[in-house]
Amino acid sequence: MPSRYLSFRCSVPWLLLLLQALFLSWAFFALTGADEIYFSSSFYTVFQDVNHMVIFGFGFFLMVLRRYGYSSTGFNFLLIVLGVQCSVLVEDLLHLLRIQYGGDGVGSLARAVMSMTAVVISAGAVLGKANPVQLIVMSLLELIIFHVSRCINSTYLQVEEQLTVLHVHLFGAYFGLAVTSRFPEPPPGLDKNRSTPKSELFSVLGTVFVWVFWPSFNSILAESKQQAVLSTCLALAVSAVAAFMLSALTSKDGKFRMAHIHSAVLAGGITVSYPAEIQHPWIAMILGLLGSVISVLGSHCLQRCFNPPLKLQDTSGVHFTFGLPAVLGAVAAVVLHVVEEVIIKQWSDLSSLGYLIFFEVAAFCQTISTALITGLITGIILNIKLLKAVHVSKYFDDQFYWEFPHLSVGF
Amino acid sequence: MPSRYLSFRCSVPWLLLLLQALFLSWAFFALTGADEIYFSSSFYTVFQDVNHMVIFGFGFFLMVLRRYGYSSTGFNFLLIVLGVQCSVLVEDLLHLLRIQYGGDGVGSLARAVMSMTAVVISAGAVLGKANPVQLIVMSLLELIIFHVSRCINSTYLQVEEQLTVLHVHLFGAYFGLAVTSRFPEPPPGLDKNRSTPKSELFSVLGTVFVWVFWPSFNSILAESKQQAVLSTCLALAVSAVAAFMLSALTSKDGKFRMAHIHSAVLAGGITVSYPAEIQHPWIAMILGLLGSVISVLGSHCLQRCFNPPLKLQDTSGVHFTFGLPAVLGAVAAVVLHVVEEVIIKQWSDLSSLGYLIFFEVAAFCQTISTALITGLITGIILNIKLLKAVHVSKYFDDQFYWEFPHLSVGF
Amino acid sequence: MPSRYLSFRCSVPWLLLLLQALFLSWAFFALTGADEIYFSSSFYTVFQDVNHMVIFGFGFFLMVLRRYGYSSTGFNFLLIVLGVQCSVLVEDLLHLLRIQYGGDGVGSLARAVMSMTAVVISAGAVLGKANPVQLIVMSLLELIIFHVSRCINSTYLQVEEQLTVLHVHLFGAYFGLAVTSRFPEPPPGLDKNRSTPKSELFSVLGTVFVWVFWPSFNSILAESKQQAVLSTCLALAVSAVAAFMLSALTSKDGKFRMAHIHSAVLAGGITVSYPAEIQHPWIAMILGLLGSVISVLGSHCLQRCFNPPLKLQDTSGVHFTFGLPAVLGAVAAVVLHVVEEVIIKQWSDLSSLGYLIFFEVAAFCQTISTALITGLITGIILNIKLLKAVHVSKYFDDQFYWEFPHLSVGF
Repeated sequence: MPSRYLSFRCSVPWLLLLLQALFLSWAFFALTGADEIYFSSSFYTVFQDVNHMVIFGFGFFLMVLRRYGYSSTGFNFLLIVLGVQCSVLVEDLLHLLRIQYGGDGVGSLARAVMSMTAVVISAGAVLGKANPVQLIVMSLLELIIFHVSRCINSTYLQVEEQLTVLHVHLFGAYFGLAVTSRFPEPPPGLDKNRSTPKSELFSVLGTVFVWVFWPSFNSILAESKQQAVLSTCLALAVSAVAAFMLSALTSKDGKFRMAHIHSAVLAGGITVSYPAEIQHPWIAMILGLLGSVISVLGSHCLQRCFNPPLKLQDTSGVHFTFGLPAVLGAVAAVVLHVVEEVIIKQWSDLSSLGYLIFFEVAAFCQTISTALITGLITGIILNIKLLKAVHVSKYFDDQFYWEFPHLSVGF
Repeated sequence: MPSRYLSFRCSVPWLLLLLQALFLSWAFFALTGADEIYFSSSFYTVFQDVNHMVIFGFGFFLMVLRRYGYSSTGFNFLLIVLGVQCSVLVEDLLHLLRIQYGGDGVGSLARAVMSMTAVVISAGAVLGKANPVQLIVMSLLELIIFHVSRCINSTYLQVEEQLTVLHVHLFGAYFGLAVTSRFPEPPPGLDKNRSTPKSELFSVLGTVFVWVFWPSFNSILAESKQQAVLSTCLALAVSAVAAFMLSALTSKDGKFRMAHIHSAVLAGGITVSYPAEIQHPWIAMILGLLGSVISVLGSHCLQRCFNPPLKLQDTSGVHFTFGLPAVLGAVAAVVLHVVEEVIIKQWSDLSSLGYLIFFEVAAFCQTISTALITGLITGIILNIKLLKAVHVSKYFDDQFYWEFPHLSVGF
Repeated sequence: MPSRYLSFRCSVPWLLLLLQALFLSWAFFALTGADEIYFSSSFYTVFQDVNHMVIFGFGFFLMVLRRYGYSSTGFNFLLIVLGVQCSVLVEDLLHLLRIQYGGDGVGSLARAVMSMTAVVISAGAVLGKANPVQLIVMSLLELIIFHVSRCINSTYLQVEEQLTVLHVHLFGAYFGLAVTSRFPEPPPGLDKNRSTPKSELFSVLGTVFVWVFWPSFNSILAESKQQAVLSTCLALAVSAVAAFMLSALTSKDGKFRMAHIHSAVLAGGITVSYPAEIQHPWIAMILGLLGSVISVLGSHCLQRCFNPPLKLQDTSGVHFTFGLPAVLGAVAAVVLHVVEEVIIKQWSDLSSLGYLIFFEVAAFCQTISTALITGLITGIILNIKLLKAVHVSKYFDDQFYWEFPHLSVGF
């Protein structure tokens, strides 16, 4: 059976055309020019950094599979250009329905690019397993759900508007995990999901890009940008040191393993994403260290104990790269907030403290449970017959999606 | 015959020395320090973006041929560092002759880097066919002609000074095409002008760079920078979606073809280059879509119907990547301008409208015909015996220009 | 003998843990939040450029060896994240001891990243020969000594505070050379220290990055930023032209050699690093030309006449890439300063002129002699038995430090 997807493939362009027509007509009616939109030059710089990080950095970051380099970069690119338009549209709709404040142009575009990180992370979890139609449907559903979840957080759970976007790693990772659990597992003998030194070098290239631009990502919406930049820089530095340390500790012979370095160097940035405006640099450094620890240990435990019984196959390890550090960051934000309140109010007002804790924890639980539940549902939707899931034997293969007019293939 | 170029090669350094001595002596007499030159920090950022895009982005963008990676990046780099100096010199001379306004330092340097895009595009058309001496002569001639063409546009045809630079894609593409038509065609059996997955990955890397930095390119000289940035971002996003859509539509089996993605994702940016300061975002989006359509369809039609009879061999497809979208952009600019005038003046002043259309169309025709005619002449000059054109069998080969002290060659 | 290092390797993580604990406790006591730290947006942009250049650019710049790609990038990254923290700590300590002015946050972080260039350059000299423990010890010792040398220059030799950092190339190159002289030479038959076309393409990628970001590096601490940017841009352009010219002149058949281009394109930037705020652009251009000449000629002479008798093996050629142009820059700075003084004072005050020359030359000699002497001592320390130097047969090999879970290795 040459896979059900083959004959179905011709529907990709029509889906794209439909979506693009939708976005165009929305732009015609709703999108005003740049008159109201204030692009300060310093904002533009940071915005470009985030753009570069999401498109280039993540595109190459995901290029770990030996025969999936074209699709990793290409589909990442496609999802982002579609998703950014969709995200601005969804935000506008929510604004029209008066559910959410929004529509200030600059912030809207920046939030759109940042929201795409969730999709990119989820796409990393199903890397090589989903066909383009599935990826597009997943990214549209995920964006809508993410914006709704943000709405709930900001409207009912008193989370500040710009903080809601920073749940993006948490949401993306757990949504992706839930989606991937509905995909059939590849046969154990398959070697197409391995990496080669060459593909890993490209991936290192992407990782370094993401690493360097992370302070821009964390600070773009922050109120005190300098604090967010300083915290993120320090956390990233510590987590990179810890990544090397733990990689040598956990592998046999004390050798470094590139896969550890990959995921753990970013852990610090993710951990301080949510509580980025930390007063004390040393707290950021400790969070960076803990993020790295949880990422490397998580990669060991999850891949051995957790994933096999649940039949999860998390291709690019988004659970320990993005999920666990984001959970740590969210927990740390609650703890730090509580400690700060306690220091200021000196235990005088315990009820308001409980109230505060309740809302912070509720926002966190709401995000993660929404991600898991809707992720599962999305996973089920993606595997209905209509979308013609790819057969397991065609997983992780560029040749299934791309024309190779070359004599000798083989990356 | 080990090619006539071999013995001639020793003249490259002397040509470079001569040119550099010329630029140095000009700098000694004419170039003043940075006192008059105002480098605002925000300008510096955008200037660096454009630099990065032209040197790094285009250098790797052109790295499509399997055995021509060194030359693609290396010669691109050499041409830019030579050409920027030459371009500032030519602008200064035209200023001295009181033909052109100029000499404001910052703008001069920025315009020089932007003008180099024309040379880079033309070099893409003769990629792998011209030897370094031919490339250098071509780039010097092209720069001089481009600046003269800009002068004519701004002096006699009432095009605004900063808009004249944005004809750069149009000029570069058609100049390059005319030049390449004078080069002998490579034999059909030659497989050195194919790409490999590895070389295409490097090329994707460059393309993504160019894509991300394009808003900086379009906005650096614009008056309302925020509008130019917004239009370009939207046009680029739409054209990237359309690139995937059309690639799947036009190839058999609905597979994507990387070469299409390559050229069509940039089409949006090129199309809105000239009319970048568009009031309505949806117009920019439609232009991006049309740019992508014309680029992918152009690539099909040109390679099958147009190039073979004309014996054109456009190595990296500059005609449909840069030429056609630039033509579309120029036409769109005229139409938009006319519509705008009509709306404002409500058909009251038809003669001034005709006057306007005449000048806009004249500037466009002047640019394209100058490019074609001088390109043909340059192509003839490049193939005189003095410059020792490379033999067809040595086309597309790094080893002809670079020392490989390696054991195993073969990219 | 499977090398003494193998069993010792397990000490790497503990060393990292110890250092990180030290930095964390210092941050706890000394590092205040961002309140005092003023991150202007324009500074942030340039700071990111320098970050990107040092981490990404140099990481890939060093990727010349065919089997050492992982280690080149990975260890470069590790050294920088460790070193930046160490550098801030050392500066704070020197400030506490009231030896050095400092502690203004922004400048401190920027100076830390810039100081790391010295370590990166020295690491380039021992590339492939030192194990991670040796590299870490070397980088810590080098940073401490570099900051002490800067202190001497600024306290006793009247060099301006921000100029002292710009001795970083000079110090790094000669320190690295002195260290590498204490390492045993690899056997002549070893082919692991060759490059392949693929590894050189990655290296070109890094070189172009470093090249593009160099103006940011030279201008970040400069007083008249625009002059530093203009001088550096021009010097870089001229040195790139000269690099191609000289490469074709010195190689047989007039072919270009990528290794020459690599080192010589950067020479201009290094030469004008120290005297960056030059009044006349043509002086910067001539310095760029001379830097390129000295770099390419140096590469010929040193590799044939100087290195073999001294049994030096400078893996990535830091002597002629960074050392010689930096010497030229330092000498040029003295000459330019004297000429300027003479023009202003018209020979009226010869004693103060002598005084001036004395201090300038003394600062230069102090830096270079400190680098050489302490480098030799560090080289001896690194080769004590405790640090278990790598056996010569294991030089230049990724597999000795990294786990390869791949089927087929071989870069």
